[in-house]
Amino acid sequence: MEIVRERLREDILETAAFGKLGVETGHGRTVLTGSEADQAAREYFVERLESAGLTVRIDPVGNIAGRWVPDGVDPDVEPVAMGSHLDSVPQGGIFDGPLGVYGALEAVRAVQDADITPERPLEVVSFTEEEGGRFGIGTLGSSVATGSRPLEDVLELEDDEGWTLADRLSSIDFDGDETIDPTGWNAWLELHIEQATRLESTGSDVGIVDSITGITNCSADVRGEADHAGATPMDDRTDALVAAAEFVQAVEEIASDIATEHPAAVATVGRQTIEPNVRNIVPGRVNVELDIRDVEHETMDALVDRFRQRLERIAERRSVETTFDRFRDDPPSHMSDRCTTAAVDAADRCGATAKRLHSAAMHDTANVSDVTDAGLLFAPSKDGVSHNPKEWTDWDDCATATRVLAETAAQLATSSAE
Amino acid sequence: MEIVRERLREDILETAAFGKLGVETGHGRTVLTGSEADQAAREYFVERLESAGLTVRIDPVGNIAGRWVPDGVDPDVEPVAMGSHLDSVPQGGIFDGPLGVYGALEAVRAVQDADITPERPLEVVSFTEEEGGRFGIGTLGSSVATGSRPLEDVLELEDDEGWTLADRLSSIDFDGDETIDPTGWNAWLELHIEQATRLESTGSDVGIVDSITGITNCSADVRGEADHAGATPMDDRTDALVAAAEFVQAVEEIASDIATEHPAAVATVGRQTIEPNVRNIVPGRVNVELDIRDVEHETMDALVDRFRQRLERIAERRSVETTFDRFRDDPPSHMSDRCTTAAVDAADRCGATAKRLHSAAMHDTANVSDVTDAGLLFAPSKDGVSHNPKEWTDWDDCATATRVLAETAAQLATSSAE
Repeated sequence: MEIVRERLREDILETAAFGKLGVETGHGRTVLTGSEADQAAREYFVERLESAGLTVRIDPVGNIAGRWVPDGVDPDVEPVAMGSHLDSVPQGGIFDGPLGVYGALEAVRAVQDADITPERPLEVVSFTEEEGGRFGIGTLGSSVATGSRPLEDVLELEDDEGWTLADRLSSIDFDGDETIDPTGWNAWLELHIEQATRLESTGSDVGIVDSITGITNCSADVRGEADHAGATPMDDRTDALVAAAEFVQAVEEIASDIATEHPAAVATVGRQTIEPNVRNIVPGRVNVELDIRDVEHETMDALVDRFRQRLERIAERRSVETTFDRFRDDPPSHMSDRCTTAAVDAADRCGATAKRLHSAAMHDTANVSDVTDAGLLFAPSKDGVSHNPKEWTDWDDCATATRVLAETAAQLATSSAE
Repeated sequence: MEIVRERLREDILETAAFGKLGVETGHGRTVLTGSEADQAAREYFVERLESAGLTVRIDPVGNIAGRWVPDGVDPDVEPVAMGSHLDSVPQGGIFDGPLGVYGALEAVRAVQDADITPERPLEVVSFTEEEGGRFGIGTLGSSVATGSRPLEDVLELEDDEGWTLADRLSSIDFDGDETIDPTGWNAWLELHIEQATRLESTGSDVGIVDSITGITNCSADVRGEADHAGATPMDDRTDALVAAAEFVQAVEEIASDIATEHPAAVATVGRQTIEPNVRNIVPGRVNVELDIRDVEHETMDALVDRFRQRLERIAERRSVETTFDRFRDDPPSHMSDRCTTAAVDAADRCGATAKRLHSAAMHDTANVSDVTDAGLLFAPSKDGVSHNPKEWTDWDDCATATRVLAETAAQLATSSAE
């Protein structure tokens, strides 16, 4: 199969013009759900789907799907679907999302042009609000499509300006009434930029993801005694910040220890709030928030247990009161063997060097993998930079990864394996 | 000499009515410079001074002094002055300040009633804005009177509502044009509540302060790399918060070590700011602010040196960039031997148990001690609580400490020692 690099490049660059930032180096864009830029990007996408002979559907949360039914194929057979998202973070890059959307469309066009006969329809999808840039919740559209969030609740979410998601979608005329149901897909593939340097540093053309890490978040609260910083002798203090500092160090130490055997395991204290946070008062209370990830749920549980135990030891030794709350627990997602095997074979056929790896960032594929066979491919990211106008993937790399995507989709759509 | 406990109690309780808080337990008040409550408290004070036969002066920064010249004493002889302040922190207590002001007035009344002949005038003083509750700078009025801050600058200070100190003083008619000059005082005494528990825990009636700790403030800045909390492996991070946490612990460890030989030495990280302070981003930058105090300037310098060295070691080992800035350095203040000896003798004559101690909190006396002989007495604080409506000193304790103040002042005013 032949990928037309210039056709793919043109679609991505046309999309990059919507919400374009005036930056000196790189190509930046801001595309928030329901903005004018989002409307323009969506309208261009619909036009490109229809130009390629795909039939477009839009669902109530604004997800867009285009279906191509090859000649002679029963339109009711479960399709192989592919795609990603068109929205961006504020001041984001032009590849994060659009590469997967237009890579999927280019893959369909490549299959159409090639001398092969798929046995299933092919579907190209763009999910709404993957970044959570406007409504604060990532992978929002795919979570509704896969049934993990109720549509009614999501439509009532409000952005910072007090608009609901329903308002925003209605204002750009993308509040559809059709159905996009991943449970009815035979398989799903997403192509995305890596947002890290494992492909670049190993000179690999394409990444084939085995797992997407789970995320668990915890809140550790440390309560000491707020006291006068001058009048309270060193041996008469119950300083919540010093106790919390010991815990912050322990989190790094324990996670580094576990990571020697589980290299994807990470734990971070990214956020800390201090009361009263005044220079001349011994801190009375500190809250730290943890982000814990791994490709194995057991490892995440083990990290949480060790953090909890260490916090209890600190509480005893330093006479502070502590609480530990695990308030979010999204388990890891595993790609299906059928999809990853097909991708490995496809890369082989394309002469592309493939690297098996995990994804530490969330993707719509995590939701889709809950309801059908899913695969996730990565293209190299220059210096790993992402969510930034300096985000970059060479056009040749885009084309190579898209070719692997197209070969994988073609194989999934022609094999009879369930 | 006889202290009339009820007269002292009445003055403090009358003053407590100005800016009174509606609290369930305790007696709270908010008296900010230039407020109606401040005006009422000042007017009551002037009236009480005049009732006791003192001649009142008000200076351009609103400091108030009342002078009593005993019969036969040359009015130009340097007086012995005493006092404190009438303002409070927001939601403060009723003893912090007023005990020292009305204790001073009661001391003069006691001398007047007693069968002794002072050789010097006695002066009762209330300094403006000791707490810094409205204009953000503590011991403001005494800093102007003693020449450490220029009057013109201070009058131009603006509060949160955009009023200058000049505006505030003018609005309550306490912008005087007379002179209150501590360089012309033979000696100065301040009675204040302890705001700590050293007197209570040792069953002492009165504290006789040797030194007021100096304060130095430093800012330590730690710059690492902000990174994705999922995609950045543990061994590839430059986490500014973990580095800062190591420093926070080092500050406690080093200060505790030094405090074994210098018990007044304390060092506190009370304030910490983190960028970006987002749960799923490895912190890129952390700033910590230190408050360092001791009664010896050399010890403060030694603490600063050790903190700076430790920060450099952390920077090297963790590959973070650091800067360390000592942006404030107020040296310790030492009370004059003449005043403390007089106070020790006075306590002895009163049958009061006295404890020599240091003050870890700032007082107007620190400024005055730069320009004349100064002494500072403490009355016990119940549970050490202060800056709070639960602040309390028993009336008997107020009276005992005031009697020691009166005896000390009388001795200073009758001895011919310079």
